[in-house]
Amino acid sequence: MIQKLTDKIKQTHAPICVGLDPMLSYIPEHLLKEAYAEYGETLEGAAEAVWQYNKAIIDAVYDLIPAVKPQIAMYEQFGLCGLATFKRTVDYCHQKDLLVIGDVKRGDIGSTSAAYAAGHLGRVTVGTKEYTAFDEDFATVNPYLGTDGIKPFIDVCKQEKKGIFVLVKTSNPSSGEFQDRVTDGRPLYEWVGEKVAEWGESHMGDTYSYVGAVVGATYPEMGRVLRRIMPKSFILVPGYGAQGGKGKDLVHFFNEDGLGAIVNSSRGIIAAYKQEAYVRFGEQNFADAARAAVEDMIADIDGAICSVK
Amino acid sequence: MIQKLTDKIKQTHAPICVGLDPMLSYIPEHLLKEAYAEYGETLEGAAEAVWQYNKAIIDAVYDLIPAVKPQIAMYEQFGLCGLATFKRTVDYCHQKDLLVIGDVKRGDIGSTSAAYAAGHLGRVTVGTKEYTAFDEDFATVNPYLGTDGIKPFIDVCKQEKKGIFVLVKTSNPSSGEFQDRVTDGRPLYEWVGEKVAEWGESHMGDTYSYVGAVVGATYPEMGRVLRRIMPKSFILVPGYGAQGGKGKDLVHFFNEDGLGAIVNSSRGIIAAYKQEAYVRFGEQNFADAARAAVEDMIADIDGAICSVK
Repeated sequence: MIQKLTDKIKQTHAPICVGLDPMLSYIPEHLLKEAYAEYGETLEGAAEAVWQYNKAIIDAVYDLIPAVKPQIAMYEQFGLCGLATFKRTVDYCHQKDLLVIGDVKRGDIGSTSAAYAAGHLGRVTVGTKEYTAFDEDFATVNPYLGTDGIKPFIDVCKQEKKGIFVLVKTSNPSSGEFQDRVTDGRPLYEWVGEKVAEWGESHMGDTYSYVGAVVGATYPEMGRVLRRIMPKSFILVPGYGAQGGKGKDLVHFFNEDGLGAIVNSSRGIIAAYKQEAYVRFGEQNFADAARAAVEDMIADIDGAICSVK
Repeated sequence: MIQKLTDKIKQTHAPICVGLDPMLSYIPEHLLKEAYAEYGETLEGAAEAVWQYNKAIIDAVYDLIPAVKPQIAMYEQFGLCGLATFKRTVDYCHQKDLLVIGDVKRGDIGSTSAAYAAGHLGRVTVGTKEYTAFDEDFATVNPYLGTDGIKPFIDVCKQEKKGIFVLVKTSNPSSGEFQDRVTDGRPLYEWVGEKVAEWGESHMGDTYSYVGAVVGATYPEMGRVLRRIMPKSFILVPGYGAQGGKGKDLVHFFNEDGLGAIVNSSRGIIAAYKQEAYVRFGEQNFADAARAAVEDMIADIDGAICSVK
């Protein structure tokens, strides 16, 4: 999968992924109306609206990008109906040959982490049969519990040729409260980065490892340092656009081969029609606005990378 | 809910919760057979076996204990069917007047954390209607992202009078990799503990705060220190029994009022019938074995607390 990711990035010139984080407040009125007309103002109705919204956006952008990153919390809040839409979205993206990064930020220990890994990346055994549950290609994982929490994911990843992105330095304002604390002369996130590099050594693709990292676009200087600490890890970079990051701030997240990072934008793409720059499309054409926003994001980031190559 | 928890602990003399973490390998053969006969060796079949297993255990122990702690990973691995059983288990426990601690270890930022909080502890708005999704009473939360990740949970908790347990020092062997790193003269877990105390100040019950902590039974000396750092936080203590903790090791997790901690056992209770001490019950009577194991755990822990009071 990591090879497929690099191949698709080279082919599309788009080291980006679209965050499918559908808040109901992003969804155009006409989609909500249709869904509520069919299912009522129910959890089913909300889940149907989210599905129609996702499908239109995926149809509009799938040929431009290598991957999507659905944020499971946005589905989980609607309970089983919401999670059915999460699964439907993952499956539909696979039909469109998109790689799916499940933004699940799971993290536990031993058999519990193994269960999360089986459910999101692997297979579960029932009697003599095997099944996949959510079947993403990559998952985000929280490192707070140490190697015991990560190892079960890596074991499943090796079997399935899938990958993880470990939270190293997150994009939010308070990420420094614990992550920036200096210990043995270096901030904690650097020690987590060292571990990511170490964990990755045991599960390498041709060029990059299957153990990636999450580093926020909002901290470009830290990105530069972490790039050196984890030269063979892909960095998933949230915080572009709506959270403040720009293409030129992101060049140091990439290696000299122009690879090694994938930048996410969620609201900036899926709710583009609400922004001044794309308001001309109108609410009805929200998916066209999303496509235009993806094209602009590719130009911004690919342009920035090319300018330093 | 925190008042209900303390009231129920006083009433039962059982500062314990039963971890409903049903691995298929724990479930007696006759339950698996019945479920597979009805649904086949499918995800539905697995979910049905888990449900029948949970129900029998809950029926056998509900009058002895204040709370249960279902581990969502064990359900999530079976996809939507598994999560339907998770929801059914939560609802059934509520019918039996048990408090439910959702061991979900979620943690994200801003609107994403708010979505998790709404889905697990609060309500979600669809048009003019409001719904609950999973509706636990407490949830476990990961602190790696700092206040941005915790605050949205606390906001929902205030509205719903529910609570969280923040991971501070986990019970697993590698928990020290990051949690024990010394920064500004103290290990990271103490700084997280300080934050838990601070977050809790904004959401107090009569005696205890709604912001609790997770501290592993396997680290009793650290528990003693953390008890002092967070005097008004309930400590959820995993790692009793199967992971090695004993009643006498746990006294320092409690305050002088004999409250302030709730000790979890999962495998040690739900798979008691597989242990030498309870093998006399036989596989068919796994639920009776669970009840006997709960009684022994109460005696061990209540005895240890009383001996130091």
